[in-house]
Amino acid sequence: MTINCDEVIPARHGKAIRLRKGEAVAVVNTHGTQVVDTWAFCVEDPAHYMSMEHTRVENGRLMPAVGHMLFTNQREPILVLEEDRSPGIHDTIMAACDRWRYERLGCQEYHRNCADNLVEAMAELGVAVTEIPAPLNLFMNIPVGQDMSLTQGTPLGQPGDHVVLRAQRDCIVAFSACPQDITPINGRMPTDAHLRLFPLTIGADA
Amino acid sequence: MTINCDEVIPARHGKAIRLRKGEAVAVVNTHGTQVVDTWAFCVEDPAHYMSMEHTRVENGRLMPAVGHMLFTNQREPILVLEEDRSPGIHDTIMAACDRWRYERLGCQEYHRNCADNLVEAMAELGVAVTEIPAPLNLFMNIPVGQDMSLTQGTPLGQPGDHVVLRAQRDCIVAFSACPQDITPINGRMPTDAHLRLFPLTIGADA
Repeated sequence: MTINCDEVIPARHGKAIRLRKGEAVAVVNTHGTQVVDTWAFCVEDPAHYMSMEHTRVENGRLMPAVGHMLFTNQREPILVLEEDRSPGIHDTIMAACDRWRYERLGCQEYHRNCADNLVEAMAELGVAVTEIPAPLNLFMNIPVGQDMSLTQGTPLGQPGDHVVLRAQRDCIVAFSACPQDITPINGRMPTDAHLRLFPLTIGADA
Repeated sequence: MTINCDEVIPARHGKAIRLRKGEAVAVVNTHGTQVVDTWAFCVEDPAHYMSMEHTRVENGRLMPAVGHMLFTNQREPILVLEEDRSPGIHDTIMAACDRWRYERLGCQEYHRNCADNLVEAMAELGVAVTEIPAPLNLFMNIPVGQDMSLTQGTPLGQPGDHVVLRAQRDCIVAFSACPQDITPINGRMPTDAHLRLFPLTIGADA
């Protein structure tokens, strides 16, 4: 498969990018099985961030669909899900994995995790993150049972699946190629994912 | 109906209490139709708090059931749902209502809201809250459709329904009798709710 992208999210690591209002990023599920935890923060205030609990209320839907806005903890649009070339199953209800998650799963040594990946990726842009917001877990399959059970489902996607997120305001968007290799959510084999950037073009609605 | 309780959560207002490890509180849905947004914070660090997204992962369930722990953002047990004398339908996925919620619903003037109620209730105990965690919305009915839709459902309870929450560590538990009167989640008529406190008794597992 030819990968013709601008940025890699290395397997088990994070990556953060700056988007100006009107710019977009495609998140590519290169191998079809990788969950990509995604966050967005307003540039002027990292405490003003994309919030899954506010987005669910405003859209009246468990996960965003094409055309839905993603809202901040002040209920302002920060991104729009402009395109979704995947089965459209994403997760908004599970916390990012963190060191405590892997300790509880029995890991004796440090396990890379999405929470630390967020902190690292933001630090590379010079931004300190103290709060880990609930992420938009792109491509993550968490079936909700009639009995309210939540299952760590296997991936539903295909290589090259992607979503396009367009910025509704100047923001930093952070990603983590989830290092989870104990539950089957990444098909047990964390992989790279990729980003394709769409800078502002003349005539774009910025 | 006779109300024999220790504390009132006044309609549209908040109330916070301190619980020592082993102590418990019953949250009484006095009129059967009132949603009670609930939060918990570790006494030694208000940034270490009960987290719905972590609780869902650890329990593998959309909402807690009897015997389930409620976990913090460091995945430590902070409360246990010890008893549930209600239909067992609670919400963990919707943000607390806030002033932006009511602005988006068309309110021209300030509307009381759960986020501000939390801040007020904690301030009465001398604790400053800067972050509004996603609450445990006791007695709130948000059906999830097969199409992933989320409905603002009408209440399912009966007068006097209650749940018992027991502290797994010293904490502050905060409540808001949700002021929502535009959607039908409180039966369109916010009411009081009540708290019954269970202090430590000799022989209790503290």
